[in-house]
Amino acid sequence: MNADLDAVRGIFGGAPFVADLGIEPTRLVAGECDSALVLQPRHLQHSGQVHAGVMATMADHTAGAAAQSMVRGGGLIVTAELKLNLLRAAKGERLECRARVVKPGRNLMFTEAEVLCFDGTGSTKVATLSATMAVVEPR
Amino acid sequence: MNADLDAVRGIFGGAPFVADLGIEPTRLVAGECDSALVLQPRHLQHSGQVHAGVMATMADHTAGAAAQSMVRGGGLIVTAELKLNLLRAAKGERLECRARVVKPGRNLMFTEAEVLCFDGTGSTKVATLSATMAVVEPR
Amino acid sequence: MNADLDAVRGIFGGAPFVADLGIEPTRLVAGECDSALVLQPRHLQHSGQVHAGVMATMADHTAGAAAQSMVRGGGLIVTAELKLNLLRAAKGERLECRARVVKPGRNLMFTEAEVLCFDGTGSTKVATLSATMAVVEPR
Amino acid sequence: MNADLDAVRGIFGGAPFVADLGIEPTRLVAGECDSALVLQPRHLQHSGQVHAGVMATMADHTAGAAAQSMVRGGGLIVTAELKLNLLRAAKGERLECRARVVKPGRNLMFTEAEVLCFDGTGSTKVATLSATMAVVEPR
Repeated sequence: MNADLDAVRGIFGGAPFVADLGIEPTRLVAGECDSALVLQPRHLQHSGQVHAGVMATMADHTAGAAAQSMVRGGGLIVTAELKLNLLRAAKGERLECRARVVKPGRNLMFTEAEVLCFDGTGSTKVATLSATMAVVEPR
Repeated sequence: MNADLDAVRGIFGGAPFVADLGIEPTRLVAGECDSALVLQPRHLQHSGQVHAGVMATMADHTAGAAAQSMVRGGGLIVTAELKLNLLRAAKGERLECRARVVKPGRNLMFTEAEVLCFDGTGSTKVATLSATMAVVEPR
Repeated sequence: MNADLDAVRGIFGGAPFVADLGIEPTRLVAGECDSALVLQPRHLQHSGQVHAGVMATMADHTAGAAAQSMVRGGGLIVTAELKLNLLRAAKGERLECRARVVKPGRNLMFTEAEVLCFDGTGSTKVATLSATMAVVEPR
Repeated sequence: MNADLDAVRGIFGGAPFVADLGIEPTRLVAGECDSALVLQPRHLQHSGQVHAGVMATMADHTAGAAAQSMVRGGGLIVTAELKLNLLRAAKGERLECRARVVKPGRNLMFTEAEVLCFDGTGSTKVATLSATMAVVEPR
């Protein structure tokens, strides 16, 4: 297990919405974070596929954790904007997200993430994220 | 109350993730849909503000309902991509979302939405959405 | 004519790419900027419609000028990211762009713009922009 | 040289705006396209860096060519929306763009691209694109 994982676990467990959905961190190194989610009926759209909002939450939060790992000093990461591309319908048992910082900066961090959906036979990339994270001073 | 509201209420109530969060439709006319959400602790980020994923879910679903209201024939709306801009920290008691179709089409619908946060003293625009919705044939 | 128009005219005339394309400012007030472009064959796509890159350039630059008008002190606006939605094929004689700052800030400005295409019979909205502008200190 | 390069060269040379800027294709295989641009003073922003509109044009057109290479039948690719992230100021002698189709489809193609800037000492990634391309029937 990665040494920084306890710190980032706090970023996930300490966020009520993320904890409520069941999204958990699985890996953290400088500038990269992975997470996983066991799918439940309440995560779905009326059509039976995973709701875009679940994937947006997972990708945004995992990318935010990746960005937080690159902050020097006491700054906090907040999302300025995110774009989520929904490549395919997500139907399966589990989601995994892999996020990374594409370009770190003092005030802005550019991040990317992808969401994979696993069913009994394998995994499929179902969504990609491009998000701009801002570094703000804590009040 | 709008005549079509029963139909769109099904789009919200029939989507487990949206029903679980507590997002409810409040208005529907052709090409426009509004929704509301009473904020609870589980909707929050670790910092106490509303999680971006909550606003992404609300804006995406409300814009999807606006697009669904413009579909001719039996097509179903699915989100192709969404961009959410997070203008300010959202802290308050209630969110409202107002979505509309900017350009309807046979295969694609361009939509926009804004999310307002209400506290005891008034409302503030906290997020804007730009999303491309695809019309797919039901299988 | 607006009093600040001379200043913003420099933002347009001083940018070689914008001057080369022929994009000109037509209006500037605090947080808002409009521009116009007389279409020429070299602005087109192979299909005869205006190239998306022309509209991206026009919307980005006009939104940047709107943001620059809101900067306090000596900061310079640079685009962090832009999203352009192409609503319809743009065919006509002239483009107009209307941009505004949706949310000003010390480090970030959220902007929006729309592009209208004019032919002999009237105007049509052909594109919308959502862009995040960063305020950077001049070196 | 790739066998299909003559066909895609037409996609570039036949688009007046792209030909006027000087953007040229350098590689094409199914679902992937690269292009290059020798920078000239007219491509610049007032600050001396490459204008975002130049990179938007290059990335959009190269991604569109990659998408066109995946179309079955007589459909034509048009851009539905594009998002460009501007990672760093682009200053140098030459741009290169590498685009690919992330997810092909009958009606929609999800594409990505990156833009590299070359100066005397090496290359830097200066921009990334995420764009949704629509397949339309020729009239």
